Amino acid sequence: MNWREYVRNVTPYVPGEQPKIDNLIKLNTNENPYSPSPVVKDELIKLAEDYDCLRRYPKPDCDALRDALSEYMGISPDKVFTGVGSDDVICTIFSTFFHSSLPVLFADITYSFYEVWAEYVGFPKELIPVKDDLSIDINDYRRENGGIVIANPNAPTGLALPLSKIEEILSFNKDSIVIVDEAYIDFGGESAVKLIDKYDNLIVTQTYSKSRNLAGLRIGMAFASPELISKIKAIKFSINSYTMNEPSLRLASAVLKDEKYFRECCEKVIKTREWSTEEFKKLGFEFPESSSNFVFVSHPKVNANDIYKALRERGILVRHFSIPRIDNYLRISIGTDDEMKALFSALNEIIK
Amino acid sequence: MNWREYVRNVTPYVPGEQPKIDNLIKLNTNENPYSPSPVVKDELIKLAEDYDCLRRYPKPDCDALRDALSEYMGISPDKVFTGVGSDDVICTIFSTFFHSSLPVLFADITYSFYEVWAEYVGFPKELIPVKDDLSIDINDYRRENGGIVIANPNAPTGLALPLSKIEEILSFNKDSIVIVDEAYIDFGGESAVKLIDKYDNLIVTQTYSKSRNLAGLRIGMAFASPELISKIKAIKFSINSYTMNEPSLRLASAVLKDEKYFRECCEKVIKTREWSTEEFKKLGFEFPESSSNFVFVSHPKVNANDIYKALRERGILVRHFSIPRIDNYLRISIGTDDEMKALFSALNEIIK
Repeated sequence: MNWREYVRNVTPYVPGEQPKIDNLIKLNTNENPYSPSPVVKDELIKLAEDYDCLRRYPKPDCDALRDALSEYMGISPDKVFTGVGSDDVICTIFSTFFHSSLPVLFADITYSFYEVWAEYVGFPKELIPVKDDLSIDINDYRRENGGIVIANPNAPTGLALPLSKIEEILSFNKDSIVIVDEAYIDFGGESAVKLIDKYDNLIVTQTYSKSRNLAGLRIGMAFASPELISKIKAIKFSINSYTMNEPSLRLASAVLKDEKYFRECCEKVIKTREWSTEEFKKLGFEFPESSSNFVFVSHPKVNANDIYKALRERGILVRHFSIPRIDNYLRISIGTDDEMKALFSALNEIIK
Repeated sequence: MNWREYVRNVTPYVPGEQPKIDNLIKLNTNENPYSPSPVVKDELIKLAEDYDCLRRYPKPDCDALRDALSEYMGISPDKVFTGVGSDDVICTIFSTFFHSSLPVLFADITYSFYEVWAEYVGFPKELIPVKDDLSIDINDYRRENGGIVIANPNAPTGLALPLSKIEEILSFNKDSIVIVDEAYIDFGGESAVKLIDKYDNLIVTQTYSKSRNLAGLRIGMAFASPELISKIKAIKFSINSYTMNEPSLRLASAVLKDEKYFRECCEKVIKTREWSTEEFKKLGFEFPESSSNFVFVSHPKVNANDIYKALRERGILVRHFSIPRIDNYLRISIGTDDEMKALFSALNEIIK
């Protein structure tokens, strides 16, 4: 034997680029345009005073953050799981539950990491085409399956399903694990967390990377019945006992106390999004209604990849996916008002 | 179908407990008894000033840390991989390479997470019994295999193999991936990193959790040929694009500059270990010669579990494994001189 015959070759996910360009306007990875809560600064100074604690392992169960989230969400601690961003959380969930020979269902146009994890974990999948208007028809999820994953709001379309539709999916899929990925929920839509007591097969995931302005800390969480959470934890403890480090546990717990700042930032992003969509319309762009912190736009006259390149030349980075059905779209994160003004000024030049 | 039929049930690793007890003397998880380098405090204060950066995703390739380690080790950056502790790193390596039907070889008495990962990744294993004196006989690794894992120094025995023996294992296993887990290398033994250019099937892993006093930051690394590193990275990018957060990348890069403090802490631990082994001898304990930051002791007259319990009653925590062959041993981490004096004073009462 030779080891080269037994390497696992995979097709990894390609994250949005993070280039070092001066004065770059970065609208390509859906980060928050505003600083994290000032509480983060205070906690870092406290941690600097208490830096001796870093020689100790963190709590394997992430106790402090689990309990803070439990209090914040008004649910018991045994319904909370936390991990290194929602990517870590969702991959661990897939590894825990998706082992039937029936296909796991998710939209053809959705977070493209789902397909990568399907290959990594090794389960069959069925990509359910979204409608021509990019919306999800919940009746398409009324078929035999080994699990269901719904991003709500969906990415990169930005479209949200009302909670009643999520509940309909649950009502005809009581025997499958249904994951609702709510990475963008704080910018629109209604969370399914309130349904976890009613549906013991529901797992809701969220993240600190978008609405909590803390992509750099890598924090994600899942909410579900204690039975499901205990199964996810068993898999986590088969991979790495201590996934979240002490700074992330402390900072993530602390920011939950600053609800006012959190709400203000979300409202600012939503306000800028509403104004921006009017500007996109004026320029002739077409797009589904966004409930997230990005807009997914297409222009009937100018090719998306050409716009992407022209923006990049002007120091503005947006995301273009070379994926069938959406290769004439751009996913543009909502920045500050000034960043969006610079974007529209550039688009005005490009779309003549 | 019902989801309960398709849950993956595993036997997870059980980490050493982290109880909240006042004035606890914690000698159970091989943490460093000394504070991290003061550079950590400075970097945390700098990060507090620069906390706006936390709204951005970290670099997926962990560039800053990769480059700092590359410079520190004197090897090119494409030979460096970093992750969330060496547990994350080793699990990712196992997932990348161990897919042959031949068994992966490792000692029966070694880091017990290897067995958990074998079950998680799903590869066959062959546990090679260590000798009666707990040492590894390298000739036992001269058989057909799907990979080899050697902890050097070994845990929980503390015994190190000289580099010449590691090279012998490599010389008769040129077609297998050979992983040398050097979590404790800075407390004794010679690193195999200098062999990675000579053996393109060798991967050496290390950690910041022990000798770098930073268990709370979760930092591990692997050194190997660019070909192997690129394969490991592809698997990493199939799981989570951004595993290491901004604080860990910054702090881990910074401490590499404080070589003096690092060396001093290691020397202090080694000096206390040498003195402690004399004390253990005086009390009648038997133990293999430790090259790590713990001692693995057994007493011919008093049962290990009884000693464990008696120490715990006195607020001193050590590690006892209920595992065949070693259930009459205790793994005792090297603390400060004062902590060890308290330990010996308690042991004096217990061993009468």
